[in-house]
Amino acid sequence: MKLRLLHFPLSPFGRKLRLALFEKEILAEIEAATPWEMDADLTARNPAGTLPLLEVDGEAVICPSSAIAEFLEDLGQGAALWPEDPLERAEARRITAWFDEKFHREVTELTLYEKVHKRLKRTGNPDAARMRAGQHNIRIHLDYLSYLADRRNWLAGDALSYADLAAAGHLSCVDYCGDVPWDDYPAAKDWYSRMKSRPSFRSLLADRVGGMAPAKHYADLDF
Amino acid sequence: MKLRLLHFPLSPFGRKLRLALFEKEILAEIEAATPWEMDADLTARNPAGTLPLLEVDGEAVICPSSAIAEFLEDLGQGAALWPEDPLERAEARRITAWFDEKFHREVTELTLYEKVHKRLKRTGNPDAARMRAGQHNIRIHLDYLSYLADRRNWLAGDALSYADLAAAGHLSCVDYCGDVPWDDYPAAKDWYSRMKSRPSFRSLLADRVGGMAPAKHYADLDF
Repeated sequence: MKLRLLHFPLSPFGRKLRLALFEKEILAEIEAATPWEMDADLTARNPAGTLPLLEVDGEAVICPSSAIAEFLEDLGQGAALWPEDPLERAEARRITAWFDEKFHREVTELTLYEKVHKRLKRTGNPDAARMRAGQHNIRIHLDYLSYLADRRNWLAGDALSYADLAAAGHLSCVDYCGDVPWDDYPAAKDWYSRMKSRPSFRSLLADRVGGMAPAKHYADLDF
Repeated sequence: MKLRLLHFPLSPFGRKLRLALFEKEILAEIEAATPWEMDADLTARNPAGTLPLLEVDGEAVICPSSAIAEFLEDLGQGAALWPEDPLERAEARRITAWFDEKFHREVTELTLYEKVHKRLKRTGNPDAARMRAGQHNIRIHLDYLSYLADRRNWLAGDALSYADLAAAGHLSCVDYCGDVPWDDYPAAKDWYSRMKSRPSFRSLLADRVGGMAPAKHYADLDF
């Protein structure tokens, strides 16, 4: 089976899957693309017009990222990223959805999308009130992440799961624009430091988008 | 295993699960609740503060609805609501996410939440511009639903799946406030008519919330 992932480098959802492919050691062609520069071509493959999408054998297209994650698990190859126990699996799914839905709406859209995506898409200037709201909200989320990281080895329990990959996908994108106050949240910082040191993370730290440099500490393992 | 579903009757996500429990013939206590009237009690069980949630043996709590749906499938009881084939399963997940994410953002939030939820929560008056946008957007979605219903027996393929339950959850809620122009979309109407006639749908058609009567044709099988 020939797999090809099309992703936008500063997308948390694409990053979750790039991490997953690497952690599971699944062989796939991974290609960066810019969704708003490939409109008709993209909507023919995904009517929702979004990336990431996964092509299977050059024909079938899987999207959005939640369905791709489940599909990669269904392959039964490499490390499992959902726990075996149904209740623990449900907990990992809860935290994955927490980041992909709640954190996305309350932080990612108000920081990264305001600062970076709007500029790349040329859809207007960043909205200062929205950015302030995002910077306020991220502290609530870092509190919760610290609470989890204090009590568990990984965010959903003993083993690395999609919960960690989803959280790291969002936080690494927001960190690209320097909006994560790591020093006030040592437990969250320790968890992120462990994520950042994994070989799967390397390609994320090398991402550069639209001539915008990342925050100084972005790729620094000792941040 | 003792299951108890807490749901808000005019929630598309709660409705998807009520339909699923019935279609799968899984025995569960199903209790209606109002999330904004149970704040501290609710956030102790679900930090996100949302319904639906599923209690397992009076202890474990599963949320949000996407994790509950997967958990119900994991029980391996009753009719499967994800197709067996991994690519078909991915397609069913794509359409489920289409309704639970895209339709929710582009239609449900702009119609049902403006008209009904705001009034029940006493959080202000409906915003006319948002409602107009929702009524515009629903036509695009009904076009897409008709396209799918014209080509397939059920929305994701040959068999009923979570894709149908998610779509019916949203559309039945929006239909409660009379905002679905069924007559302009015969293929979508035919699909909804088949959904509406299923025994699993009966309790949804009997819902009455906060003294607000549903649209006239809401519970009518011949609408």
